Amino acid sequence: MPELRKDPVIGRWVVISTERGKRPLDFGRREAVPRAGLCPFCEGNEDKTPPEILAFRDGGKPDGPGWRVRVVPNKFPALVVEGPLRPKGVGLYDMMNGIGAHEVIIETPRHDRTLSDFDVDELDELLLAYQSRLNDLQQDQRFRYLLLFKNHGEEAGASLEHSHTQLIATPIVPKRVMEELEGTARHFAIKERCIFCDILDQELWDGRRVVAENPHFAALAPFAARFPFETWILPKRHAPHFAGIDPEQRRHFAAILSTVLRKLDLALDGPAYNFAIHTAPVNDSRDWYFHWHIEIMPKVTKVAGFEWGSGFYINPTPPEEAAEYLRDLRLDPAPADAP
Amino acid sequence: MPELRKDPVIGRWVVISTERGKRPLDFGRREAVPRAGLCPFCEGNEDKTPPEILAFRDGGKPDGPGWRVRVVPNKFPALVVEGPLRPKGVGLYDMMNGIGAHEVIIETPRHDRTLSDFDVDELDELLLAYQSRLNDLQQDQRFRYLLLFKNHGEEAGASLEHSHTQLIATPIVPKRVMEELEGTARHFAIKERCIFCDILDQELWDGRRVVAENPHFAALAPFAARFPFETWILPKRHAPHFAGIDPEQRRHFAAILSTVLRKLDLALDGPAYNFAIHTAPVNDSRDWYFHWHIEIMPKVTKVAGFEWGSGFYINPTPPEEAAEYLRDLRLDPAPADAP
Repeated sequence: MPELRKDPVIGRWVVISTERGKRPLDFGRREAVPRAGLCPFCEGNEDKTPPEILAFRDGGKPDGPGWRVRVVPNKFPALVVEGPLRPKGVGLYDMMNGIGAHEVIIETPRHDRTLSDFDVDELDELLLAYQSRLNDLQQDQRFRYLLLFKNHGEEAGASLEHSHTQLIATPIVPKRVMEELEGTARHFAIKERCIFCDILDQELWDGRRVVAENPHFAALAPFAARFPFETWILPKRHAPHFAGIDPEQRRHFAAILSTVLRKLDLALDGPAYNFAIHTAPVNDSRDWYFHWHIEIMPKVTKVAGFEWGSGFYINPTPPEEAAEYLRDLRLDPAPADAP
Repeated sequence: MPELRKDPVIGRWVVISTERGKRPLDFGRREAVPRAGLCPFCEGNEDKTPPEILAFRDGGKPDGPGWRVRVVPNKFPALVVEGPLRPKGVGLYDMMNGIGAHEVIIETPRHDRTLSDFDVDELDELLLAYQSRLNDLQQDQRFRYLLLFKNHGEEAGASLEHSHTQLIATPIVPKRVMEELEGTARHFAIKERCIFCDILDQELWDGRRVVAENPHFAALAPFAARFPFETWILPKRHAPHFAGIDPEQRRHFAAILSTVLRKLDLALDGPAYNFAIHTAPVNDSRDWYFHWHIEIMPKVTKVAGFEWGSGFYINPTPPEEAAEYLRDLRLDPAPADAP
């Protein structure tokens, strides 16, 4: 059983994953990335993953070929579904059982495609898969947070090349999300407004950091961007939960996400990147102040070391320059732009 | 002039380094790592760096050969020394001029040596160089924090192979340090004790996470370690500032640091790593609760992506296993162990 442990000084939770149980010698060599034929996420290799939880199909039977998007439990989960939380103290430390869910959303049956190749219909269906899994998992009252994130490319931490998103359900709210919640609540207490709504107002009026825009969404280079070409997409209308998105909004989100990913792909020559959907906690009454958004972080600089230790980032590209470059970049042909 | 900008939601400061001004196309290819002969940090190439600030020498003139440790300004500094801070608001955002210092401590004249090759005398002298620079820089009343950190190996973000430490002086306290300060103050308000002193008491009594120990220092695998083989070294006696270390303590610190670095080197086959010295802010009255320490973070897992977005870490090696392995590892011959 993995353990969730809390740093007693700064309150950060970590998963100590005893199941994976890496011994020192395991770190000697990098694991080889499987070649296309042996990839467990490719169509035809469905028996190499645990049984599917959800799939959108053109035909075929569960756990067989014919799917377009497929969701499976992670074969090496960081957290496990079965069991009680059992929080306890160990001297001055706090811990609980590593209860949660760890799923993989396989975005395409084809090994050679990435999200920047997707058209708006395909992205919309992927977002529907995200939404369906969130709506299902939030029924479990043990979970407090549902974390959707993607590692694309080896330099962004992807251990498998085949395009996929991960979903981790945790019984605690991750530190960064808690900080955002506290920040939004603090602003609300003073101003009686959502701080992300205020940011959107200022940015759309200013215009210098706007990357793209449609009736329901804005893509921005954040004022205090940590990474070159870091881009956030926010819904214009206040909404705490990504999972509450309606079909019209989802299609506009798919359209702007497609635009941003294709522009980043073109500008940075197919960069490694991470993204994470920042959405409000589940089963939590403090969610109202939150304003969901996605943060996309290209990994183009090698500077990545001491930031962990300090929370201090150095960004060599001003967000105004990044936004101007991306804004002016022509995507041609661009059928994906119009929802 | 670089800018310091603050994230309005979570309060994280970043440096937007306009001087480096990387354009999109600059990210297309990785910069080549200079070969030994062209390395600006090698003895004989002193004219390839700005003039030295400090050097410990066997002979020779300033900015010529003959040095053992040499401190120079970073040729491409993230922050600049000259100018006023000039804090200002831009709508709902906060920013100030990117005033600070960015120095490089070149640890050895030889390209082929790393810290795990150093004997205790050499490490002691390096720590003296750290201490001297901190004591000098804290005279500047504009500075609030002095951040000493090391990126070793390309995977830890080192852009130059030659062994070196960096020192950044900032006019703000980095977020992570602020969180530690707040955590220690909170504990003190409840218990009237230092939380790091309490951690040391519990860990030395428990023993399972102790990696090494001498009369003045303990090396621990932290209870909520983020990374496999993450190791912290703390002074046993409460002290907020690393720069206040006396010669006897410094020698014991050099000895235990040598032990830990050599054990990590042996256990993980010369891993990439980062370390950062966590010390109290300067020119700040809230420093007393703090307990300085060093955090050493080997970079052996590829998992490194979404942690930035969530503050949620997955560690596949329990710290008890890592500590046991390192504790039992024989260093032979081990002249460096005895101060």
